[in-house]
Amino acid sequence: MPTRGHGHPLDATVQSLLAEYRGDPAPAGGPPELSEVAWCVETLRLALFPRLLGRVEPAEWLRRTLPELESRLAAQIAAAYRMADTLDAESARDRALTSTGALLAALPSIRALLLTDIEAAYRGDPAARSKDEVLLCYPGFFALSAHRIAHELSRANVPLLPRMIGEYAHRLTGIDIHPGAQIGSGFFIDHGTGVVIGETTVIGKHCKIYQGVTLGAKSFDREPDGSLRKGYKRHPTLEDDVTVYAGATILGGETVIGAGAVVAGGVFLTTSVPAGHAVHGPRTELTLRARGDAL
Amino acid sequence: MPTRGHGHPLDATVQSLLAEYRGDPAPAGGPPELSEVAWCVETLRLALFPRLLGRVEPAEWLRRTLPELESRLAAQIAAAYRMADTLDAESARDRALTSTGALLAALPSIRALLLTDIEAAYRGDPAARSKDEVLLCYPGFFALSAHRIAHELSRANVPLLPRMIGEYAHRLTGIDIHPGAQIGSGFFIDHGTGVVIGETTVIGKHCKIYQGVTLGAKSFDREPDGSLRKGYKRHPTLEDDVTVYAGATILGGETVIGAGAVVAGGVFLTTSVPAGHAVHGPRTELTLRARGDAL
Amino acid sequence: MPTRGHGHPLDATVQSLLAEYRGDPAPAGGPPELSEVAWCVETLRLALFPRLLGRVEPAEWLRRTLPELESRLAAQIAAAYRMADTLDAESARDRALTSTGALLAALPSIRALLLTDIEAAYRGDPAARSKDEVLLCYPGFFALSAHRIAHELSRANVPLLPRMIGEYAHRLTGIDIHPGAQIGSGFFIDHGTGVVIGETTVIGKHCKIYQGVTLGAKSFDREPDGSLRKGYKRHPTLEDDVTVYAGATILGGETVIGAGAVVAGGVFLTTSVPAGHAVHGPRTELTLRARGDAL
Repeated sequence: MPTRGHGHPLDATVQSLLAEYRGDPAPAGGPPELSEVAWCVETLRLALFPRLLGRVEPAEWLRRTLPELESRLAAQIAAAYRMADTLDAESARDRALTSTGALLAALPSIRALLLTDIEAAYRGDPAARSKDEVLLCYPGFFALSAHRIAHELSRANVPLLPRMIGEYAHRLTGIDIHPGAQIGSGFFIDHGTGVVIGETTVIGKHCKIYQGVTLGAKSFDREPDGSLRKGYKRHPTLEDDVTVYAGATILGGETVIGAGAVVAGGVFLTTSVPAGHAVHGPRTELTLRARGDAL
Repeated sequence: MPTRGHGHPLDATVQSLLAEYRGDPAPAGGPPELSEVAWCVETLRLALFPRLLGRVEPAEWLRRTLPELESRLAAQIAAAYRMADTLDAESARDRALTSTGALLAALPSIRALLLTDIEAAYRGDPAARSKDEVLLCYPGFFALSAHRIAHELSRANVPLLPRMIGEYAHRLTGIDIHPGAQIGSGFFIDHGTGVVIGETTVIGKHCKIYQGVTLGAKSFDREPDGSLRKGYKRHPTLEDDVTVYAGATILGGETVIGAGAVVAGGVFLTTSVPAGHAVHGPRTELTLRARGDAL
Repeated sequence: MPTRGHGHPLDATVQSLLAEYRGDPAPAGGPPELSEVAWCVETLRLALFPRLLGRVEPAEWLRRTLPELESRLAAQIAAAYRMADTLDAESARDRALTSTGALLAALPSIRALLLTDIEAAYRGDPAARSKDEVLLCYPGFFALSAHRIAHELSRANVPLLPRMIGEYAHRLTGIDIHPGAQIGSGFFIDHGTGVVIGETTVIGKHCKIYQGVTLGAKSFDREPDGSLRKGYKRHPTLEDDVTVYAGATILGGETVIGAGAVVAGGVFLTTSVPAGHAVHGPRTELTLRARGDAL
């Protein structure tokens, strides 16, 4: 072995890894694949916004691409059903085709929602030159496109895949929206890096949030056996026309930010805010010192 | 249809999507493509830093690659002119070749600037082992390379593309620099995730900022018709040798941080700071409680 | 030149770039390549978690893939030794094979650690439906997989490459862990965007941190010549069972957060916390105003 002069025991590594694997549950089919999930999301975005396709004739493109999309998306959903719900191959494929069909049928209404999000971004950001700029460049809009698709699959109780779609968008944008979150029309996330929107968040129409905003859980209830209680409302509600500025944190399932309210940047909130009010933290007293002093 | 046993109406989806598309403006050529934009940015970085190329002879590489780069970048810029300024194909190509030529001619001066940024990162971070580490690994340096390219195109009034380049870097680094921002030599962004630098920000020489710093707008003026006023100075100015620690927020077009000033972590600033001063928030009183108390 | 009608001097650009390059040190071999580093990390993750492989028979896959992994990883490590330590080709390859062998031999123990991290995420997050969801989707777990690999290479004094692996994970997750950081078993990073964990941080067992947490340096010591002092403990220590909530900042090499302590969200800490205590900031007084007031 001229290229491995140090007596490195590759076979020993193989053996010890195989020994380590023994505790693993036997795989039922393969897991959903991130690269396929990414292809499905990008292709769904093209189907929603043929303007991204350019000169291609949309009718022809749809007729050619939708059957392929249906088959590749159904394969990923089937893999999720097999892995998470341990369905047999046939039942998994069956349910996957139903879920896929439901998502494709919902595309026109998802598109209608996303058009309101583009409008909101264009109106809400003085730096936006055109709606095409929002469509092509805005990470908040990308994250919302992925979310509205993932949320549809989540409502249909598809396991794993909605979360993979959400995390695909999180990777690309730094915006972490759990697929369970319910988000009304005309939502605008500006800049977006660091935004976290928890699973049971409810957001009304025409809301706007900035980078670093957390809509999170206050603390976790526990079951009698000490494990975390799952599946109850842990995250806040924003009613219509709420604005939350950068870095604000709003926690708790019973926290309601009333219609038209504004939450100032950096505020930490665990209680409700009445409609039509603005919430500020204390005016911070800043101290100026000539440099040379220790920082 | 054995693989689609649930009577899923794929044709109905095609029809309803086509109906939905009817409101879209007719596409003029295709939009710029993100994958091409990414290739152009990565290739420009190789042309700026042949050390990234390794053993390849730079002269030969440049002679072979620059014509391809010119042609692919010009194609993307032309697509942007067509889409955003609705130029006809010939005028778009014409202007694109001029803009591309100007960018390529500016590469030596962009490289000179970026060398000062590498130097600043190497001197400013105790964890930096070498300048190669900065060049190969530092996300702040990656974001600045992309920004200095995007800013050059932005100054030439190229639409859409500078923003796509900025958002490509934002995806990879979590650092969101609007291509309009003016940034002096020797700039260092450490860690960088969550940094936002707005369109009309002006930054002097030898400044340093950390993760989560926002240089943003205070509030938005509106036109008489209620729409947002666009295109005036909304973001702050940092003079030379300013340091802004992690998570600080500095807002407003008239906010000037004087030369040599230091802004402490987490500070929220909407007023100017005189040169040579350090700004701190109040010493926060922390409360210690034995655990078991409610959090 | 029909496609270049504006007399753009491409040759002049080549000449001026070549003149600019003259200051560069001569390259010794090529630098490590990010795409290869990415392939190695993803393949190591498959070797650690064959559940990600799906139906493929793990024994066969390992016997086929491990030799390729060894050779491609060794090539990247050799490139790093050549570039950073200016070793000649043969010594670089020699040392690279030793380092690669050591990493591969450590895979079983890395896997054992990562299984405790999966367990911690599953138990610590009410939104987690299964351990497979953690393995497939959680960015904090992805960042830790990459970190535990990078840290092993870092302990073997491999230059550049550990940092490239860390930054590969930073790109994908927004979580910035320096490869030097020492992290105990059962660590859980939830959401994760904006997390920064510095080079000399030490973290005990069963700790949990949330998005936007910084474990950083307080200020930098300088050498007598004015350059930054490098290589001493600049970052904090978390003992076992510590929880740090979103956006908290803990700075300084002598700052120790005692076992079982809890640090509240947004707290800024530069002093130690005794074991078993919770640290809170002041209860912020929020001001409510009816809208229409200036923000």
